[in-house]
Amino acid sequence: MITTKNCIIRLSRYKNALYRLQALGFVKFFSDNLADAVGVTAAVVRKDFSVFGISGNKKGGYQIETLLEKLNSILGKDRLQKVVVIGAGHIGSALMRYRGFEKEGIKIAAGFDIDPSKVNRSSPVPILPLEEIKGFIKSHGIKIAVLTVPDIAAQEVVDIISASGIKGVLNFAPLRLKSPEGCIINNVNLEIELENLIYFVNVMEKTK
Amino acid sequence: MITTKNCIIRLSRYKNALYRLQALGFVKFFSDNLADAVGVTAAVVRKDFSVFGISGNKKGGYQIETLLEKLNSILGKDRLQKVVVIGAGHIGSALMRYRGFEKEGIKIAAGFDIDPSKVNRSSPVPILPLEEIKGFIKSHGIKIAVLTVPDIAAQEVVDIISASGIKGVLNFAPLRLKSPEGCIINNVNLEIELENLIYFVNVMEKTK
Repeated sequence: MITTKNCIIRLSRYKNALYRLQALGFVKFFSDNLADAVGVTAAVVRKDFSVFGISGNKKGGYQIETLLEKLNSILGKDRLQKVVVIGAGHIGSALMRYRGFEKEGIKIAAGFDIDPSKVNRSSPVPILPLEEIKGFIKSHGIKIAVLTVPDIAAQEVVDIISASGIKGVLNFAPLRLKSPEGCIINNVNLEIELENLIYFVNVMEKTK
Repeated sequence: MITTKNCIIRLSRYKNALYRLQALGFVKFFSDNLADAVGVTAAVVRKDFSVFGISGNKKGGYQIETLLEKLNSILGKDRLQKVVVIGAGHIGSALMRYRGFEKEGIKIAAGFDIDPSKVNRSSPVPILPLEEIKGFIKSHGIKIAVLTVPDIAAQEVVDIISASGIKGVLNFAPLRLKSPEGCIINNVNLEIELENLIYFVNVMEKTK
């Protein structure tokens, strides 16, 4: 079964939209409702569902609760996901304190930093020296790291943590990293996101 | 001329890769070099360039300096871009202190928050009450806002700042907002990015 990143991102969005529909008291929905809520066509919703063997019935649509269970299981949300943050600078520290992850069943188990002055074992999310990462991820069963180190350090740190057993990296450093074998890297590039927005606002302003 | 978000994101990546090539001493490059650095095919590079009327010569490739000037002009990077951050929580405060934007010619002119206890006019990036935003963006010529408010407040705040003259919003709240007319919203959803990574790592682990 081949699934693209975009397809899985849509599954997350369906799930979030379904929770909002459920909070409003709905128990059933049609692919059209979900399509509107997520901003795609109903055909895309049905196609995504068919990839995962999810089928509704034409008359009654889909049951929200059943579908949420299924989506949560596909997305691995039926169990707590523990991740670590590497780099305790401004962005890394903010992510360690960010409440949004916990709501999604994602727990930041620890932060790591190369700089000994950043180490703080007694903070709510303990910040540990990078050399302890191997033992930590082994004993806590962690496979995912969020990388918020300066760009000049990013590739070296990816190589270190990947050799320590990290399988997936969410990279905030504004450059393209080489993926070590057996390690997936997704990028969040805040500079490029802003640049992109600036471009389209400028185009819109010029054509007014 | 129709350009997609992905095309403009690639332009940003070409620009960043060209700066790295330039730092290594290169003055010319071929579409293949750039394709490798950005992770697309050479045909995509040439197609993107042709959309903007950029042509190289078959023999000598492209001049890095000339192309950087052109890309910077297309992306609006030939002048300082001022933005504001709405919401001075953990993520918002980290973005106000984040050095990466300045390197890209993006200046965070001010932060805004509804909570009076967050207001701090004397911090390096002043944090002002939200009701001052209209006057501020008018006097500073600002059109772009980064939105880091709690999800329950996000739509209301978007409506307020859009009515105040904001034309583009980079939204960190984990839900889909309705775009007011004449306002572009791009989303950075950290929860979904992590969820996505967790999914693909789980798939990789299962198929091992």
